Amino acid sequence: MALSREELIQAVSSQMPAKRWKHTQGVMESAVILAEKYGADPVKADIAAILHDVAKYWPVAEMEAVIRDNGLNAELLSHDKQLWHSEVGAFVAERDYGVSDSEIINAIRWHTSGRVGMSLLDKVVCLADYIEPGRDFPGVEHIREQAQRSLEEGLIAGFDSTISLLLSQRRVIYPLTVLSRNDLIAQLHN
Amino acid sequence: MALSREELIQAVSSQMPAKRWKHTQGVMESAVILAEKYGADPVKADIAAILHDVAKYWPVAEMEAVIRDNGLNAELLSHDKQLWHSEVGAFVAERDYGVSDSEIINAIRWHTSGRVGMSLLDKVVCLADYIEPGRDFPGVEHIREQAQRSLEEGLIAGFDSTISLLLSQRRVIYPLTVLSRNDLIAQLHN
Repeated sequence: MALSREELIQAVSSQMPAKRWKHTQGVMESAVILAEKYGADPVKADIAAILHDVAKYWPVAEMEAVIRDNGLNAELLSHDKQLWHSEVGAFVAERDYGVSDSEIINAIRWHTSGRVGMSLLDKVVCLADYIEPGRDFPGVEHIREQAQRSLEEGLIAGFDSTISLLLSQRRVIYPLTVLSRNDLIAQLHN
Repeated sequence: MALSREELIQAVSSQMPAKRWKHTQGVMESAVILAEKYGADPVKADIAAILHDVAKYWPVAEMEAVIRDNGLNAELLSHDKQLWHSEVGAFVAERDYGVSDSEIINAIRWHTSGRVGMSLLDKVVCLADYIEPGRDFPGVEHIREQAQRSLEEGLIAGFDSTISLLLSQRRVIYPLTVLSRNDLIAQLHN
């Protein structure tokens, strides 16, 4: 049974610190603006944004258990824990909050890494997560500018910033992020 | 039937401009030094270095034909042409120049992209290609410094420079290069 929007907001915001909920509100705002600009469904963008970080502050052991016990993508467990909350969030959106729309579920699942063949809603939510008004990391203005040109340009700039950061921090790069970026470049050239 | 070292040098150098042959001589020099420093076979390093760019100046159509007609890795054909000469070079080293040592063949094959599980000789030849004395691209000194610490540190710095360049030029990143880099980081942490 699906919750009302207000019930959803209540349930999700109670699972994270106030600062992270403020980030989520920024993503909701940016996702709706991007959806309206680029022809995605703003209602779905709003719901996906509300839920995108639902599992962000779950204990690591709990995320791992959900991934293992429900046949989710266990390959993630050998990668950065920052990637786990998207997979877990997509699962609990359906199981615990009654979201049955696969576009929304996918937008939650792929909001961190992207994927090859991102849907319009995937792009909107992932890009909103990079550019919401509260973000102030180095390079965010460039991503915001590119987001005005197209979803793809915005996301390429976003993934580039992520990959550069991981290079500079000598951290493992999640291969799917590179594949997502390559695929967006190919989409622009076709 | 294998050629003598002098015959091999004659055959390979005649297939490329003088400037590229000078680069190859630099790679030969650096590969032997790295092999001696890190316990690889310097004779194999020398032969692999002589041959590593044998196909670099082949016409694109000829490289493509060799890849297609001999069941080589055709996935390369959808990636940057800069990656083709390594695959073709490994094939012609065996077919045309009688090299039967699989360590040498592999070091030629993987000298551009790297691979997951690079052999000692793969590492030596790939790193020598980054740091040979004639190289003067931005950042090469950092790679040379890291190469003094370990083959893995040198290669991580080399692949990082390649990935950063591709990001800045908005070019597609060959996924295996990222996987190679990730694998080297994992090797250092284990």
